Amino acid sequence: MSNDDTAQPTRQVGRSLTRLEARAKVTGRAEYIHNLVLPRMLHGKVARSTVAHGRIRSIDISAARELPGVFAVYTADDVMRVIPEPYYGPAFHDQPILALEKVRYIGEPVALVLAEDPHVADEATHLIMVDYEELPAVFNEVEAAQSDRVLVHEVLRPAGTFPDLKHLAGRKGTNVALDFQLRRGDVDAAFAAAAHVFEDTFTTQQVMHTPLEPMVSIAEPGDGMLTIHTASQSPSFVRIEIARLLGWPENRVRVKSALLGGGFGAKLYIKLEALVTAGALLARRPVKVSLTMEEQFFTITKHATTFRMKTGVSADGRITARKCEVWWNGGAYGDIGPRVTQKSGFTASGPYDIDNVSVDSYQVYTNLPPAGAFRGFGIPQMVWAYESHADMIARALAIDPVEFRRRNILREGRPHATGTVMRDAAIELVLERVAQRMNWQQPFERGTGTLRRGRGIGVGFKALVAPTTSMAMVSLAADGSCTVYSSTVDMGQASDTAIALVAGDVLDIPAEQIKVVRPDTDVTPYDMATLGSRSTFHMGHAVRLAAEDARKKLRELADELGVPADQPARAGDLLRRKYGMQAGNIVGIGSFIPSYQSPNYQTGQSENITPNWMVGGCGVEVEVDTETGHFKLLRFENVVDCGTPINPKVVDTQISGAAIMQLGTAIYERMEFDEVGQLRNASFAEYKIPGIHDIPHVIGRETVDSYQKNGPFGAKGVGESSTFGVASAIAEAIEDACGVRLKSLPLTPEAVFRALCDAKHEPLSEE
Amino acid sequence: MSNDDTAQPTRQVGRSLTRLEARAKVTGRAEYIHNLVLPRMLHGKVARSTVAHGRIRSIDISAARELPGVFAVYTADDVMRVIPEPYYGPAFHDQPILALEKVRYIGEPVALVLAEDPHVADEATHLIMVDYEELPAVFNEVEAAQSDRVLVHEVLRPAGTFPDLKHLAGRKGTNVALDFQLRRGDVDAAFAAAAHVFEDTFTTQQVMHTPLEPMVSIAEPGDGMLTIHTASQSPSFVRIEIARLLGWPENRVRVKSALLGGGFGAKLYIKLEALVTAGALLARRPVKVSLTMEEQFFTITKHATTFRMKTGVSADGRITARKCEVWWNGGAYGDIGPRVTQKSGFTASGPYDIDNVSVDSYQVYTNLPPAGAFRGFGIPQMVWAYESHADMIARALAIDPVEFRRRNILREGRPHATGTVMRDAAIELVLERVAQRMNWQQPFERGTGTLRRGRGIGVGFKALVAPTTSMAMVSLAADGSCTVYSSTVDMGQASDTAIALVAGDVLDIPAEQIKVVRPDTDVTPYDMATLGSRSTFHMGHAVRLAAEDARKKLRELADELGVPADQPARAGDLLRRKYGMQAGNIVGIGSFIPSYQSPNYQTGQSENITPNWMVGGCGVEVEVDTETGHFKLLRFENVVDCGTPINPKVVDTQISGAAIMQLGTAIYERMEFDEVGQLRNASFAEYKIPGIHDIPHVIGRETVDSYQKNGPFGAKGVGESSTFGVASAIAEAIEDACGVRLKSLPLTPEAVFRALCDAKHEPLSEE
Repeated sequence: MSNDDTAQPTRQVGRSLTRLEARAKVTGRAEYIHNLVLPRMLHGKVARSTVAHGRIRSIDISAARELPGVFAVYTADDVMRVIPEPYYGPAFHDQPILALEKVRYIGEPVALVLAEDPHVADEATHLIMVDYEELPAVFNEVEAAQSDRVLVHEVLRPAGTFPDLKHLAGRKGTNVALDFQLRRGDVDAAFAAAAHVFEDTFTTQQVMHTPLEPMVSIAEPGDGMLTIHTASQSPSFVRIEIARLLGWPENRVRVKSALLGGGFGAKLYIKLEALVTAGALLARRPVKVSLTMEEQFFTITKHATTFRMKTGVSADGRITARKCEVWWNGGAYGDIGPRVTQKSGFTASGPYDIDNVSVDSYQVYTNLPPAGAFRGFGIPQMVWAYESHADMIARALAIDPVEFRRRNILREGRPHATGTVMRDAAIELVLERVAQRMNWQQPFERGTGTLRRGRGIGVGFKALVAPTTSMAMVSLAADGSCTVYSSTVDMGQASDTAIALVAGDVLDIPAEQIKVVRPDTDVTPYDMATLGSRSTFHMGHAVRLAAEDARKKLRELADELGVPADQPARAGDLLRRKYGMQAGNIVGIGSFIPSYQSPNYQTGQSENITPNWMVGGCGVEVEVDTETGHFKLLRFENVVDCGTPINPKVVDTQISGAAIMQLGTAIYERMEFDEVGQLRNASFAEYKIPGIHDIPHVIGRETVDSYQKNGPFGAKGVGESSTFGVASAIAEAIEDACGVRLKSLPLTPEAVFRALCDAKHEPLSEE
Repeated sequence: MSNDDTAQPTRQVGRSLTRLEARAKVTGRAEYIHNLVLPRMLHGKVARSTVAHGRIRSIDISAARELPGVFAVYTADDVMRVIPEPYYGPAFHDQPILALEKVRYIGEPVALVLAEDPHVADEATHLIMVDYEELPAVFNEVEAAQSDRVLVHEVLRPAGTFPDLKHLAGRKGTNVALDFQLRRGDVDAAFAAAAHVFEDTFTTQQVMHTPLEPMVSIAEPGDGMLTIHTASQSPSFVRIEIARLLGWPENRVRVKSALLGGGFGAKLYIKLEALVTAGALLARRPVKVSLTMEEQFFTITKHATTFRMKTGVSADGRITARKCEVWWNGGAYGDIGPRVTQKSGFTASGPYDIDNVSVDSYQVYTNLPPAGAFRGFGIPQMVWAYESHADMIARALAIDPVEFRRRNILREGRPHATGTVMRDAAIELVLERVAQRMNWQQPFERGTGTLRRGRGIGVGFKALVAPTTSMAMVSLAADGSCTVYSSTVDMGQASDTAIALVAGDVLDIPAEQIKVVRPDTDVTPYDMATLGSRSTFHMGHAVRLAAEDARKKLRELADELGVPADQPARAGDLLRRKYGMQAGNIVGIGSFIPSYQSPNYQTGQSENITPNWMVGGCGVEVEVDTETGHFKLLRFENVVDCGTPINPKVVDTQISGAAIMQLGTAIYERMEFDEVGQLRNASFAEYKIPGIHDIPHVIGRETVDSYQKNGPFGAKGVGESSTFGVASAIAEAIEDACGVRLKSLPLTPEAVFRALCDAKHEPLSEE
């Protein structure tokens, strides 16, 4: 079974390969942190705040501590015995491990109970009595940004890792954690000169990532060491951040991940890792905290947004000016929200060629569960607004919506609002392919009676996060078998398989024979994180470079041993000759950071704001029951530009999967808070995500023919692209079907029904 | 705590450093495989042969299988369902995982019982009934070598990994697994011309390594993968050998080791690993087998030997000819015995400058527990004979024993019997330093009455095993903290600390701040094994090279970033600048194989048979009670040449530790077999090893001032050197004290008493 037996080199990239761990998953052998049990391990359960904003007067843990089986109950005071500065966060050091002095949202962790039996720990959390001095709370992002009546945080504390946030340090008296601005041309003059000006406000709701595997972390104290086993998308970040909290060097903190049952951005940065670290150091035993599905709602969410958009259009339907104001409801803690605000902010004016642009994007603290990265990193909220707006303008000007976009689209070689010249972004092609798949130019069945049909279309784009670093290592054993070391986390996107395909392509080894070692910061080299569809590009390059390094070393060894240059350099043969027996390894290292300057996130201006652009377009056809507001999707087409697909089979599932996930946030999901900030639907019984019966019968997908010139094998990311245009396309199709325009998500039947009543000037019937 | 804060570069090599894991060991946190518990793990217990040689007619496992709590009972037939060719071994594929058709010694594994409770498994082993057709057995090595009356193996099966054993394949009708020959000059002519010829036979007994941590292995089946957690000195070998047995590529087998509670050669190659592999694959659950102390005696031992030595000496006391015939009692299976036979064989004529040499060294199969590598790799048996003989010749010729050695010693630049010119072997200096520490030229108190005192001295040498390969990897994190990856197993010799000192020396980092990752074949690169004092030299170089590679990459990065050449290249600064944040690693790789040709083990002739020589000398003073034969050591001096000590504190304990261990085999230990081959003393109650009260009060140690030119920082190995001369020095001192010469080990009071009776022609009193 030596790889040396492989006679014919075969291209690996482009093979439609079943994911390497498929068998492990269906047989139940796949490794998840939830399954891990360590000797002497304690289970931790979290007592949570019951008020949205309040000062902690006292915490009475005596009853909890006395419950038989309880090992310990810890509060922030205990945490500070092992972590004196217990604030963490990737952008701001604003989040305490357990609430300190204040609580800032209902559900915030206040105390940790440890017991050998998790049920005992859980019971004890209910015996903890906290006395709060309640404070006024603020929930709406626009209100919180524009008022200092309620201050969620008294002072801003940027983490210092992002140089462009440093100027915020010590800022007081505001809930705006970050205000991002982009200015291009003269917007006011352009509005004055415009033939038409359109102004609308769009909103999105707060939703949850709902990975089916909830967050779980275990901290295992060792000899001057700490090992953290965690279902994390960012093991390298966890290592650095925990080392910072403890004041330890990185090499004393080990972070191991495993397969993830979904991530979607929920498992980035610090979630439970700091809490289990504190617990384990205090208890001197391994501590595991695994959340319930309900608790995930109190841990991290997707930003609700308010987006005011104003667009000036010339007489011939060209957009001449666009002003965007976006308020991001960040909840009580920053998490990576400020980066979402910046990163999505600079694309807020859409994939259009506009000379005059003004963007203001605000990250706002409120008394709600924190919001962070969510598949699409803010782009779905932007596309929802700008594509809804595009459609509304087209309809108002009686221009076909596709034609309106054609007149305005940002084409190859043209500058984006940031100043970056567009390259390898197939925006127009994606739009055209969606239109063709929808037979856009053909008449279609409009429906009859109360059932009316309509169509919508849209396109969005996203800049790849940059510059970030990925490293990889490739080791060839003395029988030629190959192992790849990468800190990319396989959370369902089949990254292990993609990595094996890339390494195998370089080394002429079938991907199935390659072993990919899962993230372990003591084993796999640094990777920034698995997020933002960055792995295909960054880790793809790092693995390619590592494999090429190994191949180069093989060739050098062959030369050293006198193997003619036209004969293959096979690891097994060469190592046996070099070392006189089956011995040794060939190790290749790859390190990749794109040669792009860090964009100026303060001004948004940059001539090379990203190494590449991911593009996704969506077309839908809906049928609306105009009596009830119920609607269904008859057709659901998603087209992306992902360059060369590394593994077409997985790319297909990524396209459909992302689109269906976005369907949930577009038409079903909403975290419903009551007037005091209490979440009312923190369970799947009351919080609806798409099930198999909710998926449109006709669901099409396509990758356009493209090649990302600076990508590994012409590839770039694909995990988010088909989230972009879904919501706006549905809203467009609903208007196309029955004439009402919805500007708030989710697009529920009730919302359609209410809009239809409004349109008919009928009051809602009260039953 | 960043290493970047270290202001002053400090030499690390040469620091007397407490071992890095000291705290973990004294607090009980240190990681040993015995402590490892895996979910669903089964415990295996071994049913063993009760006859020394027999054909298996049938095995009745029904009663064992029916015992409540027994999960399964496996025999060789079951093993072959998962491993069709179940024979393993480093030199010969002669050892079945469970006895197949035949048993070859009492204690050989015949069946494996699995149960969740190890006590249940143990009880069930006693219910297994095996029907044997008993065969005649052979136990003595000379008898076994010279007769084909009893054949332990019908046919020889060399492993194929050692090319020089290939010619033995298929050899039949002999118990001699290997006959090694070395010829130099014309021995017969030289004997004819010699002024004096001396001929004696020396024997050594079979002993056990007695690591205080008995062998333990766990096999954990995974998804097309197998992980073996094992207290092994040779994880890389285990991976390759298990992969061979399974017919899998190396990258599907992962072998993890931990700290070892002693190794001494007992935990090399395959011990329990193949057995747990078979068990785990059959049971589809993790299987752990941990031996009792008693079972270790049936697993691996040290060769008993018979050594016939004939020496021709000129009138002026120069050795002119030496003929050595050595029979090594290998027991029932080869293990690494054939290499011991060769490797020690070529030094059998001693560290003397002799023109005419003939060596025959025979590895012999017998019906005893197998013998393999044991601290010293056969050299202590050789030194015992040649230094006893040297002393006897000196006394016979009335030459001072030190003076006799001075006349004959092999000096720098002179050829050894193999043809290799001696370099950097401080044989003479070691001898002189022992003599000086003993005040050899001074008169000493000879004792009075029945208590008589005497002194003995000796020197031995050992060629480093070569050529073998070590690899290492060094990773610097973005805060400058350093992690070293090495497959060297720390079994008490403080190799982790030595590795940290070497890496720290190159990188200007205090060794205490460096983390050394323990062997894990998925993580740490290839290393041949931790054996034969090879790690300091081989792994020392590999770590040095890896650290130098990292340093070079740091410098290249500094150049790339424009850091002036006279300013330090610090990982933390450079990576932060390169990647714009605390990110990335610098990874260095080191691979080392000495530039020595593989010696010709068939002929023994080689111009460069080893990269270097380890030298050890011993001096003792004893007081013998001539009425009882009891004696005690009054002084115990050990001097070695180990080049530059990497960690003088640990070198000191290696010198004393090895000497005391050898004291045990010299005067206490012996595996006692009855006439049918049944071991009678397989427990510490009956098998005596040195305790604290057995250690001489005056115990001195010294490393001579030397520098190994081809060693890392001038260093070479030290773990075995003070085992060499202990036994012969004691026998010499006994003769010096009371005039009787013992030629068999161990040197017990009873043996002294019997010799005294013989010398006085007194019959032993029968009580």
